[in-house]
Amino acid sequence: MNIGFIGLGNMGAPMAANLAKAGHRIRGFDVAGTTAEGVTPAASIAEVAQGADVVITMLPNGAILRQVADELIPHMRSGAVFIDCSTVDVESARYAAQAAENAGVMAVDAPVSGGIGGAAGGTLTFMAGGSDKAFDTAKPLFDIMGQKAVHCGDAGAGQAAKICNNMILGATMIATCEAFALADKLGLDRQKMFDVVSTSSGYSWSMNAYCPAPGVGPTSPSDNDYKPGFAAELMLKDLGLSQQAAEMVDADTPMGALARQLYAQFVENEDGKGKDFSAMLPRFASRGRDS
Amino acid sequence: MNIGFIGLGNMGAPMAANLAKAGHRIRGFDVAGTTAEGVTPAASIAEVAQGADVVITMLPNGAILRQVADELIPHMRSGAVFIDCSTVDVESARYAAQAAENAGVMAVDAPVSGGIGGAAGGTLTFMAGGSDKAFDTAKPLFDIMGQKAVHCGDAGAGQAAKICNNMILGATMIATCEAFALADKLGLDRQKMFDVVSTSSGYSWSMNAYCPAPGVGPTSPSDNDYKPGFAAELMLKDLGLSQQAAEMVDADTPMGALARQLYAQFVENEDGKGKDFSAMLPRFASRGRDS
Repeated sequence: MNIGFIGLGNMGAPMAANLAKAGHRIRGFDVAGTTAEGVTPAASIAEVAQGADVVITMLPNGAILRQVADELIPHMRSGAVFIDCSTVDVESARYAAQAAENAGVMAVDAPVSGGIGGAAGGTLTFMAGGSDKAFDTAKPLFDIMGQKAVHCGDAGAGQAAKICNNMILGATMIATCEAFALADKLGLDRQKMFDVVSTSSGYSWSMNAYCPAPGVGPTSPSDNDYKPGFAAELMLKDLGLSQQAAEMVDADTPMGALARQLYAQFVENEDGKGKDFSAMLPRFASRGRDS
Repeated sequence: MNIGFIGLGNMGAPMAANLAKAGHRIRGFDVAGTTAEGVTPAASIAEVAQGADVVITMLPNGAILRQVADELIPHMRSGAVFIDCSTVDVESARYAAQAAENAGVMAVDAPVSGGIGGAAGGTLTFMAGGSDKAFDTAKPLFDIMGQKAVHCGDAGAGQAAKICNNMILGATMIATCEAFALADKLGLDRQKMFDVVSTSSGYSWSMNAYCPAPGVGPTSPSDNDYKPGFAAELMLKDLGLSQQAAEMVDADTPMGALARQLYAQFVENEDGKGKDFSAMLPRFASRGRDS
């Protein structure tokens, strides 16, 4: 396939390189001038679109997605597929899908989980929204860039699934971290805490797969001095998107709101910037109720 | 073994019956006059203690545990074992353990998870605190009444593990419920939501094993009109114990505190009383941000 790829950053570059490695012809563009292995650089968004069967975008936010979509879609051929892998607000995802539909272009919103490691290793998970036909066209590409793709529903459903998942994740990680800190202060050994909770009704991905306590459970960023992994500021971004969506549809999400507030405090006023989002554990362990 | 059992309620009665079925001689006492299959009724706490190798208690709260311990322990023989399976505050557990130690009686605090179904089926999990010797003596009895027993540390460690686990559980369940309600309002199908989250970084016992959405995931109280299961008021009790412990040791537990506040509101001011704790999903699904 002829594939255009816009946004060759930490995530986009390895994703594009994996598609090139699998034999697809990739033309790539990034405003910062970056490129990726096996990718032919294009001079503009319009050039990326020319002759492309599929264009994939991996962008930082919804405002940029809207701009890129406005510039890109008029140059795409009718029947081509526009796959946006960015994590953005549901409204921007629907805006891009509508713009595509108006131009006879199929659209899929397909945010990912798995981070930079998953992008490099081709083990991402894609949460996709769009028509069956659009999803079926995109699926073989998802299978190259990742190991799982779930078709969640119509336009925007991929973004909805991702922000709902990550809202649960943020709240659960904080709850797990504050419980570890409480256990510390009650004299409960962290390994025992893990042994109990990971096999009881408190289990979760945050505890079992990504344990925030160093030396306990499987290897995770806590064992690497809380280098991300999944950075606290990216969790803050996703929690912001979930709160934006909750406001839009009048949904009450108190745990998600508190998680956002705590990550904002951690990233903006404490030393959470640049750390993995599981670094909430040392934060809680080093403080009391009023600090 | 000669076993005394105090507190033959919804949990204690089937636990005592399982011990009797396994061939132990059980004398039981309950202030309400209840008894259990295979259990010889005793007229008083003192009578339960006489000749007992082990006395097990299953009581509603820490204040009652302290009273029972004060009355019971002077009648127990030196070297006997006192196993408290109640869920109580850590301080009361340590009080009972100290009273036992002063009298030459071994003590284990061993709160359970698994509820009435687990008690009847002999599939409880025991989280135990106490000396190695006390735990080893209690272990064969845990194996009859349950399917797992974790030795968490010294006196009080069982209670600490349980309240830390349940604090995570309460917060995670609410986060899962509010995310389902948000997904509803964003037009994301509940089955798709389950498919994504249960296999992604938002997975947890609340989602995967006890899904709060009827007809989705394994059979759970949501499929039985939210009949408990694990009642919202029992979750509220455990969240109260975790906040009590957090105050005692100056631990900051914002998610646990919010979970307690939301369950208190649900049980006391809304219609959560008598419902399973996963009934937070219909609560969130039926309201907006300001209701």
